[in-house]
Amino acid sequence: MAEMGKGVTAGKLAINVQKRLTRAQEKVMQKLGKADETRDVAFEEMVSNFNKQMIEGSKLQKDMKAYLLAVKTMHDASRRLQDCLAEMYEPDWFGKEEMDALTEDTDTLWLDYHQNITDKSLNTLDSYLTQFPDIKTRIAKRDRKMVDFDSARHHFSSLQKGKKKDEAKIAKAEEELGKAQKIFEELNVELQDELPVLFDNRVGVYVNTFQGLAGHQEKFHKEMGKLNQNLNDIMTKLEEQREIKKGGSEAATTEESAKSEEATTVKRPAHHPKVDTSSR
Amino acid sequence: MAEMGKGVTAGKLAINVQKRLTRAQEKVMQKLGKADETRDVAFEEMVSNFNKQMIEGSKLQKDMKAYLLAVKTMHDASRRLQDCLAEMYEPDWFGKEEMDALTEDTDTLWLDYHQNITDKSLNTLDSYLTQFPDIKTRIAKRDRKMVDFDSARHHFSSLQKGKKKDEAKIAKAEEELGKAQKIFEELNVELQDELPVLFDNRVGVYVNTFQGLAGHQEKFHKEMGKLNQNLNDIMTKLEEQREIKKGGSEAATTEESAKSEEATTVKRPAHHPKVDTSSR
Repeated sequence: MAEMGKGVTAGKLAINVQKRLTRAQEKVMQKLGKADETRDVAFEEMVSNFNKQMIEGSKLQKDMKAYLLAVKTMHDASRRLQDCLAEMYEPDWFGKEEMDALTEDTDTLWLDYHQNITDKSLNTLDSYLTQFPDIKTRIAKRDRKMVDFDSARHHFSSLQKGKKKDEAKIAKAEEELGKAQKIFEELNVELQDELPVLFDNRVGVYVNTFQGLAGHQEKFHKEMGKLNQNLNDIMTKLEEQREIKKGGSEAATTEESAKSEEATTVKRPAHHPKVDTSSR
Repeated sequence: MAEMGKGVTAGKLAINVQKRLTRAQEKVMQKLGKADETRDVAFEEMVSNFNKQMIEGSKLQKDMKAYLLAVKTMHDASRRLQDCLAEMYEPDWFGKEEMDALTEDTDTLWLDYHQNITDKSLNTLDSYLTQFPDIKTRIAKRDRKMVDFDSARHHFSSLQKGKKKDEAKIAKAEEELGKAQKIFEELNVELQDELPVLFDNRVGVYVNTFQGLAGHQEKFHKEMGKLNQNLNDIMTKLEEQREIKKGGSEAATTEESAKSEEATTVKRPAHHPKVDTSSR
């Protein structure tokens, strides 16, 4: 049993218990085929659409979040790779500064992309999905009120058909029936108005979400393509620089190698103090 | 102790034990400053470069593998998101077929990108790194042979300085010294030739790796940008189609809603058989 909240009196609780009992009895009678049940095929289709829409939306939200996580993963991996190149890059190599600037620009581009998708596509989805719980609650309430309405109808009808007619009881039952019908129909009409509009709105939400995604992706890929062209150019120039250096340094290398060989074969006398290597 | 392999006789093992003992003694004497040690600062720098180069290369390989994994992660996430849209996409919405084709093209583009980076950049790195273990082994061997050479030199020198000169022993020691010097110098010269070339080659490897990466990225981003433009266009057309439909269907919706309300309030008699809902 629910905890007794603020303003909930024992009388109110007793009424709720009675309501639940009456509904359960009505559902049993309907299940046994002993009582007819208000049916509304068009409304049931709306509810089925609503449920489908809610599942679709939640899946889209989940996949979008996973996509954003993957963007972060790829940004990190791409950043580490670029850092690796930057660390290996020696100060006298062609385009050291351009390389550092490129690393920074690439980083900014990834961060902006992640932020834009979050702002545009994920937030659109998040606010779209906040509508669903309230409507779900109202659909459940409508279902309960429909059972109440059926129950009141059957009560009234059985009193009318009874052998001993108690006019006072019949009048009270009719009043209860009128109330139950009003409560149900108000909820019913509201939902009948809202559900098709909500269902139709999903198209706009999908369009916004994917148009936002596609637009930012397009921009991202365009900019990233340019940065990669720069990287390609720097690499080409570095290779050219290396080819030039190579030609120039081949003679020097041979000379050095000869010197080195000479150093190796020098034999120091046995009493020569050992050079301390620990500090090198 | 190492397991006795094919062709390794007990005699050979005894020689190895003796070699290790002699080297250890020589190192102790050098450490104590009681014996001089062949030093080659230029060679030590080459070894230091070699070690740096090996660490750099291994890190680059590791980061490249992590990048390729991240490409897979982002491909999967992007694929799931696009599948999500494809599943929600109803057959009568604008561009259903174009959408399916787009999903397939995007998939192919990701797969190709992953394959190209693997083929070009990762494989370049992998084959570059296969050279290192052999050279590392040869550097270690050169170091051992250098100790042998120093040891033979000291042995010869102490025999020469000895009071009782045993000419036969001295001649044998001189022969051993000549052998040790030859073995060491062969290894030394080889490495002196190879190490600078290998060190210089790293630049070309980095250029190839990142030029390959940048080139394929540039292509990938360019194509992906185009596909995203297509997605953007389809979404725009879908929105237009929806706006047109919306205008036309508003009257129909009102009509249907009225019908639905009517159905709700129809009261079937109590003996009416209940419609079986379990199969719907």
